Amino acid sequence: VSRGADPIRNLIRQLSRLPGIGERTAQRLTYFILGQPAELAQSLSAAIDEVRARIKLCSSCFNLSEQDPCPICSDPGRDGSLLCVVERPTDLEAIERTGKYNGRYHVLQGRLSPLDGVTPEDLKIPQLLERVKRDGIREVILATNPNVEGDATAVFLADALKQAKVRVTRIAHGVPVGSEIEYTDAVTLEMALGGRREI
Amino acid sequence: VSRGADPIRNLIRQLSRLPGIGERTAQRLTYFILGQPAELAQSLSAAIDEVRARIKLCSSCFNLSEQDPCPICSDPGRDGSLLCVVERPTDLEAIERTGKYNGRYHVLQGRLSPLDGVTPEDLKIPQLLERVKRDGIREVILATNPNVEGDATAVFLADALKQAKVRVTRIAHGVPVGSEIEYTDAVTLEMALGGRREI
Repeated sequence: VSRGADPIRNLIRQLSRLPGIGERTAQRLTYFILGQPAELAQSLSAAIDEVRARIKLCSSCFNLSEQDPCPICSDPGRDGSLLCVVERPTDLEAIERTGKYNGRYHVLQGRLSPLDGVTPEDLKIPQLLERVKRDGIREVILATNPNVEGDATAVFLADALKQAKVRVTRIAHGVPVGSEIEYTDAVTLEMALGGRREI
Repeated sequence: VSRGADPIRNLIRQLSRLPGIGERTAQRLTYFILGQPAELAQSLSAAIDEVRARIKLCSSCFNLSEQDPCPICSDPGRDGSLLCVVERPTDLEAIERTGKYNGRYHVLQGRLSPLDGVTPEDLKIPQLLERVKRDGIREVILATNPNVEGDATAVFLADALKQAKVRVTRIAHGVPVGSEIEYTDAVTLEMALGGRREI
């Protein structure tokens, strides 16, 4: 490559912004993209554009969806008085895969992390408190990850929800402590939902 | 995410086509892209489009370049009678970084690999043989990788170049056997170039 071949350096720089991709990997990916038929690059860049253009946050539960409200929030067959609070859309997907949960969700978009400067206002926590009041929620199931920060987030939420006079439960530690919900199998998640208890 | 949210599944599928990126990593990258400001996705997809639109193979040496012929092939200050044969553009970059090589290059775009079905016609080998005859090349330095397939490619090229009555050399094993040229430091590469010998 000629010195100062900017498009190559630029793609390496852009790929390096992705998590887990260092400059060496970004360089390999760039040359791979250049060495493959143009279809690969076109499909990839179109997929990136399309995902950003078509996928939005549901204004009710903050899950990612092509529709607003999302299909789960607008499904009259789901129990609207039961809210399962998760950190990420991938956690929601894992719980949906159990096929045993028929309430709705609230996606925090992360968890509290004082070390990383993540405060309640950085998450969809104000919206959760508002929604619990507004929608006549009967029970809030806290399904944040069963690790230090996820547990701390659950404790914070339980405390914040006290004045709302709503039942607040935490999924059972059927999920192995220290693991991530996203990677847990459906049966374990089902047990964790079934064994939830007051906190 | 709603079931059947195709843009998300599609981006995961496209990212999974890249080397070293499995479905799990592709999923993480997809949600990362969705969670970041739109600028990240826009810059990334534009960089992919631009690299494919602006970067071409030099029709003489088959290096990647914005110009054809590339800056190295069109530089009158470089020795046009000396050709360094490399597998990949990244190998060329590594040799350029030594600052000690003033000839030109020929980028094979890979190496012979019978197991993977890579034959001489899949590489820029016919073009190399033609170029050696046409351009009055004095010496061909074989700088394919110092591992099994790179060595086999060098032996094949030395044999194919015999009838061209050109001096054919192999870079010295200053480069550690079994390693990759792309990762070798400049001093070692300089020694390897300096210690080249007839094969």
